[in-house]
Amino acid sequence: MPPIQSNTRDKIVETAMELFAFHGYGPTGLSEIARKAGVQQGSLYHFFPTKEELLAAVLERRKALLWPDVLQAIWDRFDDPIERIFKLLDQYRQMLQATEFSHGCPIGNLAIELTESHPNARELIAENFTNWLKAVEQCFHEASRRLPEHAEPRRLAIFVLTTMEGAVMLARTYRDFRAYDAAIASLREYIEGLIESETNWGSPRQIDRKARTRKK
Amino acid sequence: MPPIQSNTRDKIVETAMELFAFHGYGPTGLSEIARKAGVQQGSLYHFFPTKEELLAAVLERRKALLWPDVLQAIWDRFDDPIERIFKLLDQYRQMLQATEFSHGCPIGNLAIELTESHPNARELIAENFTNWLKAVEQCFHEASRRLPEHAEPRRLAIFVLTTMEGAVMLARTYRDFRAYDAAIASLREYIEGLIESETNWGSPRQIDRKARTRKK
Repeated sequence: MPPIQSNTRDKIVETAMELFAFHGYGPTGLSEIARKAGVQQGSLYHFFPTKEELLAAVLERRKALLWPDVLQAIWDRFDDPIERIFKLLDQYRQMLQATEFSHGCPIGNLAIELTESHPNARELIAENFTNWLKAVEQCFHEASRRLPEHAEPRRLAIFVLTTMEGAVMLARTYRDFRAYDAAIASLREYIEGLIESETNWGSPRQIDRKARTRKK
Repeated sequence: MPPIQSNTRDKIVETAMELFAFHGYGPTGLSEIARKAGVQQGSLYHFFPTKEELLAAVLERRKALLWPDVLQAIWDRFDDPIERIFKLLDQYRQMLQATEFSHGCPIGNLAIELTESHPNARELIAENFTNWLKAVEQCFHEASRRLPEHAEPRRLAIFVLTTMEGAVMLARTYRDFRAYDAAIASLREYIEGLIESETNWGSPRQIDRKARTRKK
């Protein structure tokens, strides 16, 4: 494919991705996407004969962007796997703040909108969630020496995701961070409680700040 | 208002409530609502000159239905406040199962769809969440003797809601209950951990099964 064509396709996908995230899939028209991408509508139909095909391309792009757009900056800056998880949650908070609550989780939005009506999109949405879960699960794996045995990394990763999605939903509804921060604080207490219990009862590192606090 | 008119209005609101929950607000047309409710379209416009007014009526009805449709059967059957909370979460699981994942949380769905585009609806969606939170918060208040002081009922109620909304989202996306059950299991572990820590360090009930397990 010559580079000009591939640039046009990219522009269409990027524009659709933004508009779907902001307005939803249903309310976004193909003519609006073409106009905002600065391409002819015929060109859009050339690459994407149906809106569903464009949606699939957007969801594939989202998968490809997980590392460079969502994880990499945090993973590069922080080494502690538990810290990475909470910085990731911070990043959603920053996104809500920067967009004045107008952007939520783009995958969560499409999940709610399309799960029933678009089975093909649902599969791709599930793959996006699964990849996100794998990254967070990997963090818990790396921290497994600090966690008790029953704390399965997969289960904990799911809990981080459900907390994030629910917290984003409440922040957007209330237009403030009280519920968001409350949910993250509880999640943190839960994770720290697991680490603490392991420190007390399972691992050789008996004397740290938290263990001493508990022994009072 | 004569009873026949009020019945017509009720039928319209009930039908719109069902259709908004199943298809979303945007994709549901007023003519479809009138047809399914078995009323003339002119009659619908008589009661609701705009779709937004019908949406507001649906969200007011949802608020009124919280007790009879969501809470009452559980509150009547179970006395333990913590058990009430987990039975409430069970009820969402049963709803997902009974509808084969086609119905999510009707308030969560509308929150995602309308939070940005419909500020008036957003207020009413927030009120629905707030009333749900109050009911769960009340449970934690009633269980406060079993909980440590720092476990604020409001914060815990928010965590229950974010967990439920996130878990419903993942169940619908994956079309199975693995993620849903994993999230609820972690929430339960968290809440039981709070109760257990209070049993160990704060309350007079020192010797119960869990306290003994920890002392091993």
